[in-house]
Amino acid sequence: MPEPIGFIGLGHMGLPIAHNLLAKGFPLRVYNRSPDKAKTLVAEGATLVKSPEEVATSGGIVITMLADDAAVESVATDQLARALGPGGVHISMSTVSPETNAKLDERFARHGVAVVAAPVFGRPEAAAAGKLWVCTSGPQAPKQRVKPVLDVVGQGVFDFGAKVGSANVVKLAGNFMLTAATEAMAEASALAEKNGIPRGSLLKMLTQTLFNCPVYTGYAARIIDADFENVGFALPLALKDMLLARQTATSTHAPMPYLDILCDRYISAIAKGRSGLDASALAQGAAEDAGLKWGV
Amino acid sequence: MPEPIGFIGLGHMGLPIAHNLLAKGFPLRVYNRSPDKAKTLVAEGATLVKSPEEVATSGGIVITMLADDAAVESVATDQLARALGPGGVHISMSTVSPETNAKLDERFARHGVAVVAAPVFGRPEAAAAGKLWVCTSGPQAPKQRVKPVLDVVGQGVFDFGAKVGSANVVKLAGNFMLTAATEAMAEASALAEKNGIPRGSLLKMLTQTLFNCPVYTGYAARIIDADFENVGFALPLALKDMLLARQTATSTHAPMPYLDILCDRYISAIAKGRSGLDASALAQGAAEDAGLKWGV
Repeated sequence: MPEPIGFIGLGHMGLPIAHNLLAKGFPLRVYNRSPDKAKTLVAEGATLVKSPEEVATSGGIVITMLADDAAVESVATDQLARALGPGGVHISMSTVSPETNAKLDERFARHGVAVVAAPVFGRPEAAAAGKLWVCTSGPQAPKQRVKPVLDVVGQGVFDFGAKVGSANVVKLAGNFMLTAATEAMAEASALAEKNGIPRGSLLKMLTQTLFNCPVYTGYAARIIDADFENVGFALPLALKDMLLARQTATSTHAPMPYLDILCDRYISAIAKGRSGLDASALAQGAAEDAGLKWGV
Repeated sequence: MPEPIGFIGLGHMGLPIAHNLLAKGFPLRVYNRSPDKAKTLVAEGATLVKSPEEVATSGGIVITMLADDAAVESVATDQLARALGPGGVHISMSTVSPETNAKLDERFARHGVAVVAAPVFGRPEAAAAGKLWVCTSGPQAPKQRVKPVLDVVGQGVFDFGAKVGSANVVKLAGNFMLTAATEAMAEASALAEKNGIPRGSLLKMLTQTLFNCPVYTGYAARIIDADFENVGFALPLALKDMLLARQTATSTHAPMPYLDILCDRYISAIAKGRSGLDASALAQGAAEDAGLKWGV
């Protein structure tokens, strides 16, 4: 019988993940700042509670899936840790800095609770399909205990060892690579268009040949169609991730010139009023610098 | 019966392409600055000639596959154009600037010869297997005539219209994207290693999931193993391509900040004595900037 799970954070990613867990028979106690988001889950049998710590059962498992470090810190308090108590496990699934998860680990350890970092790759559609890729790090026994949970969330789990923040470094490095791919396609497309070649011709060829992988085909389609308003990954969250990567890169002394350019592209996109668009709207920067205009 | 073909340039790419054409029954007349390179072709029935223009038959097809713009200009002379004469076709397969092919087009047009740009994507192994990707541009009728030739060279032909230089812009844009992918992997790997995560763990996960395409798997393997001495694409040729892209981007007004970083990475690699390595040795730059050392 699947273990009961406490679930905090029913946003674009959290809600479909919670639905999948419920569908696989995990009893769910859920909390969200806006309780309205829980309606469909409650209709399927989840219990909605009024405070983060009420999702916890003694010695149980709690998942947090929130937008940023501040949101995670605001729910992953001593109260939550106390409610979980000895033997409890906190699966920290949000994209946060390794430092934040290390800090939570210290806090939760004082209450006998283990923290497993488990950030995921994939957009909301992948979350709904249970096709995310999950990266874990943390102590071994709790990782094994939560494996059946993570197997529902994703199509594969990759482990990065005992240090709780490691999976977060991997997640930030991966998001950097995704975003760098968008910038590279945008610059190549601007070059093509300034030479009379439609970006669709260039990107379709490249994504049918050398770059035939989901990241490139997905972002190429958005760039070709200037499809930036259909938000899968909100632009301000992408900036947040780049700034977290920047902070970790700085504190551990890894110069990353491509990352710097991405930070500035997102800052510029926000300056241009694009906070409501998808992260792929980054591509408009290279186009505009070349005197071109793609989309809104 | 396949048409006779003149073939100039028997380097890493030209030699396997010439072998494939010969194997498919195209009679070949070949020229190379160092005639030794032609030995295996002559053994299989090719005719070795002593000057570039001698490869041509009146109204026939000539392929040039050389290292750079200067090498192409030195063989694609008025003499060669005259030897080809009215109805002839020059397939310009080298990675050169669009401006160079436009200039050749003007020169050859004066002799009634059409120029078809047909740069290719792929390493020597792909050339040997006939698995290159071919990009064409130029006038329609000659492109149709040479299609059976290009079908032997590659597994697919993508056309970019009538303007002779367009395929070269696409080739430069594609090589930029390949190289940008290497830099992104290198920066992400440096970040991971500075945080105690082996670059192999990071890159294997990413190339098994979001980045499971030939470019990433191939370059990731080289970065993981620090395999830079086994040269598939010589580092100075990669710099040459980035500088051609830079020149075209400048003349057509497309700012490309990622490209600028790549130019400097290659210049630095040469400064560090890496001219004899594979282009993927670019990755060492991000590692060294972070105080790490990968490979030689």
